[in-house]
Amino acid sequence: MEEPSNTVDQRGQLRQAPESFLSTELIASISSAGVNAERRGLLRAALTAALATAAGSSAIAASVGDDPDIVNLPEWSRTLGKPVLANPYGQPSKFEANIVRRQSPGLTQTDQSSVAFTPLQNLFGCITPSGLHFERHHQGWVDIDPRRHRLMINGLVREPLVFTLEDLLRMPSVSRMHFLECGANTAQEWGNSAVPTVQYSHGMLSGSEWTGVPLSVLLERAGFDKAANYLLAEGADGSGMTRTISMEAALDDAIVAYGQNGEMLRPEQGYPLRLVVPGVQGVSWVKWLRRLEVGDKPYATKDEASHYVDLMPDGQMRQYAAIQEAKSVITAPSGGQKLLQRGYYCITGLAWSGRGTVRKVEVSTDGGRNWREARLEGTPQSKMLTRFNFDWVWQNSPALLQSRVHDSTGYIQPQRAQLVAARGTRSIYHNNAIQTWRVRDTGEVDNVQLG
Amino acid sequence: MEEPSNTVDQRGQLRQAPESFLSTELIASISSAGVNAERRGLLRAALTAALATAAGSSAIAASVGDDPDIVNLPEWSRTLGKPVLANPYGQPSKFEANIVRRQSPGLTQTDQSSVAFTPLQNLFGCITPSGLHFERHHQGWVDIDPRRHRLMINGLVREPLVFTLEDLLRMPSVSRMHFLECGANTAQEWGNSAVPTVQYSHGMLSGSEWTGVPLSVLLERAGFDKAANYLLAEGADGSGMTRTISMEAALDDAIVAYGQNGEMLRPEQGYPLRLVVPGVQGVSWVKWLRRLEVGDKPYATKDEASHYVDLMPDGQMRQYAAIQEAKSVITAPSGGQKLLQRGYYCITGLAWSGRGTVRKVEVSTDGGRNWREARLEGTPQSKMLTRFNFDWVWQNSPALLQSRVHDSTGYIQPQRAQLVAARGTRSIYHNNAIQTWRVRDTGEVDNVQLG
Repeated sequence: MEEPSNTVDQRGQLRQAPESFLSTELIASISSAGVNAERRGLLRAALTAALATAAGSSAIAASVGDDPDIVNLPEWSRTLGKPVLANPYGQPSKFEANIVRRQSPGLTQTDQSSVAFTPLQNLFGCITPSGLHFERHHQGWVDIDPRRHRLMINGLVREPLVFTLEDLLRMPSVSRMHFLECGANTAQEWGNSAVPTVQYSHGMLSGSEWTGVPLSVLLERAGFDKAANYLLAEGADGSGMTRTISMEAALDDAIVAYGQNGEMLRPEQGYPLRLVVPGVQGVSWVKWLRRLEVGDKPYATKDEASHYVDLMPDGQMRQYAAIQEAKSVITAPSGGQKLLQRGYYCITGLAWSGRGTVRKVEVSTDGGRNWREARLEGTPQSKMLTRFNFDWVWQNSPALLQSRVHDSTGYIQPQRAQLVAARGTRSIYHNNAIQTWRVRDTGEVDNVQLG
Repeated sequence: MEEPSNTVDQRGQLRQAPESFLSTELIASISSAGVNAERRGLLRAALTAALATAAGSSAIAASVGDDPDIVNLPEWSRTLGKPVLANPYGQPSKFEANIVRRQSPGLTQTDQSSVAFTPLQNLFGCITPSGLHFERHHQGWVDIDPRRHRLMINGLVREPLVFTLEDLLRMPSVSRMHFLECGANTAQEWGNSAVPTVQYSHGMLSGSEWTGVPLSVLLERAGFDKAANYLLAEGADGSGMTRTISMEAALDDAIVAYGQNGEMLRPEQGYPLRLVVPGVQGVSWVKWLRRLEVGDKPYATKDEASHYVDLMPDGQMRQYAAIQEAKSVITAPSGGQKLLQRGYYCITGLAWSGRGTVRKVEVSTDGGRNWREARLEGTPQSKMLTRFNFDWVWQNSPALLQSRVHDSTGYIQPQRAQLVAARGTRSIYHNNAIQTWRVRDTGEVDNVQLG
């Protein structure tokens, strides 16, 4: 697979000229950060002067050097800025224009039935910005007029119901944070075609706060048949995407969602209604949701019979394997980035489990021989991304970076060899193996498969 | 104060024609949801037929009626949608164009030193979309070139340091969710000028996930004087905003942040660096942060001497009152909205405390005589917004809606009369009184002050 833009979509921190980096050991010497020793002396004199004044805002301006931003304050400190509401709906900085979703050329035959990947290497924390949420459509995305949209509940119910969006907005509401991962995330790692960046290897993944009506409330209101074990969820886009949902998942924590990250769903994410099925693969989170049919058997629709099945070593198909098992990935340093100076690095990544909560994440820098525990940011939420961080000092020597997650069920993320032993290499879906990033002694990072 | 756009910036759910609403009691009768009884019979026949087929996607199409979306599938179900990457950085639906930040005409003399308020009445959950985050600038906002930006630490330190953004991106990183509230939020409620909507009464409030370097790490690295009790934080915009930060807050949980809600800070929020001081009023979260000076006394800068002080009943000024005390507000139904039919409503709102965690939220529908506990969404985080929901059946009779929060220190949000007894009515800042929304028998909701 061709890799079009590997050099432009990386955050600068790992790709800048060497002189812009400081190791922890060297941080006391600020000469390499753009202020040389002589100027530092001047800075110190300026500071002393500044301390004698009340507010001391002249410290930077008073330090004389060859940097125009130090001789004269930069223009943004000397001019009137832009008014409030210059953007009534705000946008990222113009300097972040390269941080976008990207398509993988050649991966799909059309742009309507395709994928746009999230730039995980550039993101922080566990919330995915809605503007960078991955896209996976089957017949393109639509921007539905919410006044004309309806949700029908039919099938084995006492009385079929049709809801408008306004009906749903007046009903009991819940807000919960959950990850969303396409079942085909990391698909190409089943083979030997290791893709170059984490955007393409793991970028069909997001974490969001979802708001909507518990699906159980809607089913109760329709008087669903208590003996029914399945639901069919159907979307209103041209593909008419249909998926079987188990009644167990539907009654547990599924949501008919209208909100994502505080606002209405984005059109690419199913505006105005999307089914949220926590822990289950993304294809079942049906977008532009228009119908839920209560039934007594799985529906064996196209996208759960010929697609989204795993071809096992014995030639059998593994079907309806919906839960996304525990998985983690280091997002930086990651493939396509480069370490330019020895010293401290904060290895960072994401961990999640479709069966519960992240309990522990371990990181190895030697390909899995030794493991140390990473710091988890915040309190892990059920079926939600957890950000981890890990202190590392790089000594200009080769390294193999891996992470593995332990979840609340006791499950431990498998090495690739373990997963392949059980499932072979002919699957497309449900690859949750440990990811390895190789750091060469030159500092270059690439994607390798061990074992 | 003039109210420019009260009718257009409300979510439709409370402002539509009556026939589009269903009470819980009436929900079984789906005629008012756009499908009449006759058509319902046809739908049922269609459903029966659909059940006999595998996927049954013809159920809606087969139901004949006068609604063109039922006779013919709507156009979005019959056409090819837009490709992935139609927007490499995604945007809200065109149908949500009225959900924007708004300025309050007449509130300030210039648009550069002004406020744009967040549309709280339209938002869900506890994460504020970055595009709708409130703005409060003192000399307009700037989009700083991150390659030219520097952060200096000086004053009572062993060695002054200057950091580039790349330096900071390589240092230890934390991600935490915290609310941000302007000290002047709800300012106009001190007087009798009750503003019409929650966007203007409480819209200088947000909840975000912040990522950056713990301030304590930077101070340790500079070798700060352990006897120093204060920091001066200075911004790089034209106003050179300066604020005194207590060393206690600096070493506790303050962050030099570059990330917000998963991506780099937005320009209006201080790109590329902002000081995050959890629990403390927004003006101290200095944007475009360029300098931190360690000192041994408060700096008494303009924005903490003549502004951001509270004029008490005895004529004394209350200064350096930085912590945002526990507060809550019902965001819907709220001022400017209208209940159009008796029946079930989900009363929803936000609660927070600058001193810790939300323990409990109670809601009253009779002006504080009776209280019942609301549901909290998710696990409350320290110094972060918590979403609450409360079931209510409206009987076409007048009501007075209030919420009050209890925090982890045992503090209970005060009624307005209690707060006024202690602080008078001449303050601008730090109003955390219980908010009252009056529902008239006509269903109209407005802002009233009790007592």
